[in-house]
Amino acid sequence: MFREKIKVLDCTIRDGGLINNHEFDHRFVREVYKALSAAGVDYMEMGYKNSKRLFSSKEYGLWKFCDDSEIRRVVKGIESGTKVSVMVDVDRVDIEDVKPASDSPVDMIRVATYTKDIDKAISLANHFEEKGYETTINIMAISRDQSVELNEAFHQVEQESRIKALYIVDSFGALYQEPVEHLVKMARSIIKTKEIGFHGHNHQQLAFGNTIEAIIHDANYVDGTIYGIGRAAGNCPLELLMGFLKNPKFDLRPILGLIAKEFIPLREKIEWGYIIPYAISGMMNEHPRAAMALRKSEKKDNYREFYESLLNAELD
Amino acid sequence: MFREKIKVLDCTIRDGGLINNHEFDHRFVREVYKALSAAGVDYMEMGYKNSKRLFSSKEYGLWKFCDDSEIRRVVKGIESGTKVSVMVDVDRVDIEDVKPASDSPVDMIRVATYTKDIDKAISLANHFEEKGYETTINIMAISRDQSVELNEAFHQVEQESRIKALYIVDSFGALYQEPVEHLVKMARSIIKTKEIGFHGHNHQQLAFGNTIEAIIHDANYVDGTIYGIGRAAGNCPLELLMGFLKNPKFDLRPILGLIAKEFIPLREKIEWGYIIPYAISGMMNEHPRAAMALRKSEKKDNYREFYESLLNAELD
Repeated sequence: MFREKIKVLDCTIRDGGLINNHEFDHRFVREVYKALSAAGVDYMEMGYKNSKRLFSSKEYGLWKFCDDSEIRRVVKGIESGTKVSVMVDVDRVDIEDVKPASDSPVDMIRVATYTKDIDKAISLANHFEEKGYETTINIMAISRDQSVELNEAFHQVEQESRIKALYIVDSFGALYQEPVEHLVKMARSIIKTKEIGFHGHNHQQLAFGNTIEAIIHDANYVDGTIYGIGRAAGNCPLELLMGFLKNPKFDLRPILGLIAKEFIPLREKIEWGYIIPYAISGMMNEHPRAAMALRKSEKKDNYREFYESLLNAELD
Repeated sequence: MFREKIKVLDCTIRDGGLINNHEFDHRFVREVYKALSAAGVDYMEMGYKNSKRLFSSKEYGLWKFCDDSEIRRVVKGIESGTKVSVMVDVDRVDIEDVKPASDSPVDMIRVATYTKDIDKAISLANHFEEKGYETTINIMAISRDQSVELNEAFHQVEQESRIKALYIVDSFGALYQEPVEHLVKMARSIIKTKEIGFHGHNHQQLAFGNTIEAIIHDANYVDGTIYGIGRAAGNCPLELLMGFLKNPKFDLRPILGLIAKEFIPLREKIEWGYIIPYAISGMMNEHPRAAMALRKSEKKDNYREFYESLLNAELD
């Protein structure tokens, strides 16, 4: 019933960090690590490895930088088979900050990129791979890409990189099942020596359904977050994904306990989930930027006006 | 791009009525009818036609009974191309209560049934069809049915009824895309002279994705509710479905306006949506009854304990 090759990566702290400036405290991150470890989740992504020359550590929380020392504090003393992942953005990382894998608590580095920067992403991924890390390349905002560009990028990834997986990332929550099927099949047909991954966003309540769709078409790296936390509408809920995958090594109970204890109260403080302006952004294949700004304004529930403003912007 | 044959039925008042005892007032129901009419939605289902001998009109709201006179009050003076639907349950309707269609504001009667009662459902549907109504048969809790029983039921429906559509109803929110594909294809292969319909429940955030899946495999009658209102986790959000279908006759704006004005405040008073005990019920292919009881108790957020109680019940 279950497919052993499938790896589940939880990016609760990393994608969730996008809505609280990466300000999770150590206690919280340890609780998440503990629960994911007990649940048997394959990877936990803690945040971004950003350059401190580009971003001030006074303005952002710890998980914008993911210093090895902070990660060590999180994992210390907790029995775990869960590997640690961090994400880097093209042009935002100092490669000198990244020690060899043998000296680091990090197991995997995921390089987030737009298709146009695929050369930079491959170069970065190869650098980290040489330092001993598992690597992936995650193509963001893929719903805006043309097939011809993607085709070339996929060929480059196949020929020039040594990544574990190439991720299709639906940053705008704009993909329906058929485009997911198309993209995964297209990637699968070109990329023979790596796995395909999928990272969904939940703007149209399709993150989980699209993740299943990707799995049906042979994606083996899939992302989730606890209770679906993440920027804007959030991500594929990890608890649903675990229920679907039926890998006997998974134990849902620690995740359910943690949702009740930590995520229900947290949701009272910070907002994510099914919210109409994010649904509209998804339908219109737009970055949720405008919707996020709306939600911070007094007009936060002016859905009709917001929709009309996007329609007008399209036509102007 | 769009498939003209697809008919969208909104069951906001009918399925939403299951969480408030069918107590929507006339003003609210008129607002919904007005918005659906302006939005170009094909059908609006207002409630159940239940026998007043079986249920007391003192204990339930108007939409448990859907008297023609109450429906006339709703639609009066509102310009509309939206047809009116009501639902009947096998064994809960007095057929004498149902006048000929020519004397009624109702256009369609949908017969909800379990597979075991398919003979009764066909007999009821034929009776209403003879009275001049459009009819459907909606097979509830289909995730619990065996293929062999369904196969027989589908053949009967094809041969013995004159319904417009046979609905596959995922009452427990337990279906993933592959079972939806299987069921729709199976129905489609047997039922050649009627349409196939799909009604999803959102326990696992799959109501919309599964509705798309059903459409991909040629289901042409699909249900939604405004802002996903409905029992337990609710239904497929109408606004997402309209965004997906891209029928130029649809106008999303009246629905968005109504969500802001009526459904955001309503959601503060009654509960539906993504709530962990409903997700657990869906994963376990269980009626949400136990989860609904939990949500009304002091233990409403004891997710882990609830999950363990269902696991133990399965093993006992």
